[in-house]
Amino acid sequence: MQSNLSTDFSCPIIGYIKSPFADKFAVPRQSGLAPSAISQICFYKPYSDPKAFIALEGFSHLHLIFFFDKIEKEETFRAMVRPPRLGGNQHVGVFASRSPFRPSRIGLSVVELVEIKKHDGEISLFVSGADLVDGTPILDIKPYIPFVDAKPYAKGGFATEKPPLKQVIFKEGVRLKLKSLNTRELKAIEEILAQDPRPAYKAGTEDVKLYRAQLYNFEIVFSFHGDTVLVEDVLQLKA
Amino acid sequence: MQSNLSTDFSCPIIGYIKSPFADKFAVPRQSGLAPSAISQICFYKPYSDPKAFIALEGFSHLHLIFFFDKIEKEETFRAMVRPPRLGGNQHVGVFASRSPFRPSRIGLSVVELVEIKKHDGEISLFVSGADLVDGTPILDIKPYIPFVDAKPYAKGGFATEKPPLKQVIFKEGVRLKLKSLNTRELKAIEEILAQDPRPAYKAGTEDVKLYRAQLYNFEIVFSFHGDTVLVEDVLQLKA
Repeated sequence: MQSNLSTDFSCPIIGYIKSPFADKFAVPRQSGLAPSAISQICFYKPYSDPKAFIALEGFSHLHLIFFFDKIEKEETFRAMVRPPRLGGNQHVGVFASRSPFRPSRIGLSVVELVEIKKHDGEISLFVSGADLVDGTPILDIKPYIPFVDAKPYAKGGFATEKPPLKQVIFKEGVRLKLKSLNTRELKAIEEILAQDPRPAYKAGTEDVKLYRAQLYNFEIVFSFHGDTVLVEDVLQLKA
Repeated sequence: MQSNLSTDFSCPIIGYIKSPFADKFAVPRQSGLAPSAISQICFYKPYSDPKAFIALEGFSHLHLIFFFDKIEKEETFRAMVRPPRLGGNQHVGVFASRSPFRPSRIGLSVVELVEIKKHDGEISLFVSGADLVDGTPILDIKPYIPFVDAKPYAKGGFATEKPPLKQVIFKEGVRLKLKSLNTRELKAIEEILAQDPRPAYKAGTEDVKLYRAQLYNFEIVFSFHGDTVLVEDVLQLKA
């Protein structure tokens, strides 16, 4: 039997995420890599109804299904992508990747559920380890069911283990400029920079460039020195 | 920052699944519960391009993102559902469930990748353990990355372990009527019936009803006797 649907699929956008990542640059390349980064999922009405979240507190993890809205809709299908993990110069099939440059522009991330908050009769969720740009539209939230979803012995192709981490150090006096952040937010910034957010082809090379990432309400200015990331300066963004 | 999208999300349907489940009734309630059930994912052009699947062979498992197209689009949002696992009479929030009756009508399943087949220059995928009705439209295929997606110690709320299995026996002579099926297909039928596909509220009660499930090209007629499923008859469906 062949599906009789030849048209597009459509569904409502149920909410959006508030994350520390104001910009695509420096978003962790998978979920869970910066566990101290807490994001808030806000729901539009009527999806914010507390009844829709009854029994969710029994689950420790969630699947977020979201819309990579920062990616332009392609006019022609691109069959291959260059994952950053492979140095950004090797092609693999788009369906062998988690690249946002895919026909559906649907993203999938597993996050940890930290808190279910009720405010003015509406629910929002606080989650840890999300890899979504601030404002990303949410299409669905599903509970993570370990006996169904956890395949710890699965073969992970070209993505078999976590990428190596850099050490993060701050230039003298610079950390003080972040004193409005709490300990967890500071730790999140370190986790994010430790991932080495540069384009992958830069990683093995001599690199004298200054990079800038927008995290929380700060612009973080940093450079690379072997296995170390040096935070050179921090600028407060307007609220 | 709030998403500036108030409209619906849309994306192309990239293919469809050929599964043993001609009908909603008797589809396993989660993926992986009937591992012998092999399904084929067929792609529309241009998504069937073999280039789009380069390096997929290194992954043992996939996420299928699909459209529950047998579910009517609801005019009003239903905040609560009654999962079969809870006996079908207890309500939980829709976002605490994997119910198809959800705003997005998007489904998510983890399946095992069995074979990547190339035929006439087009790719199709054979997968094991899918819980999709035959003909279900596919929106996306993503590789399963164990270090990101596998959370074996996650808390599973009201769905902490696999449902108990029934024993499946055939009335004398009935198994012979399935001789056109191979061993794996026969085993799949047993795995499917062992799940007890009845509406959950029936499970604990005296139940003299005859049930019918369409699997492969057969109608399977069965009844329940304590912890046993008795296959009473098998009828060949027209091809």
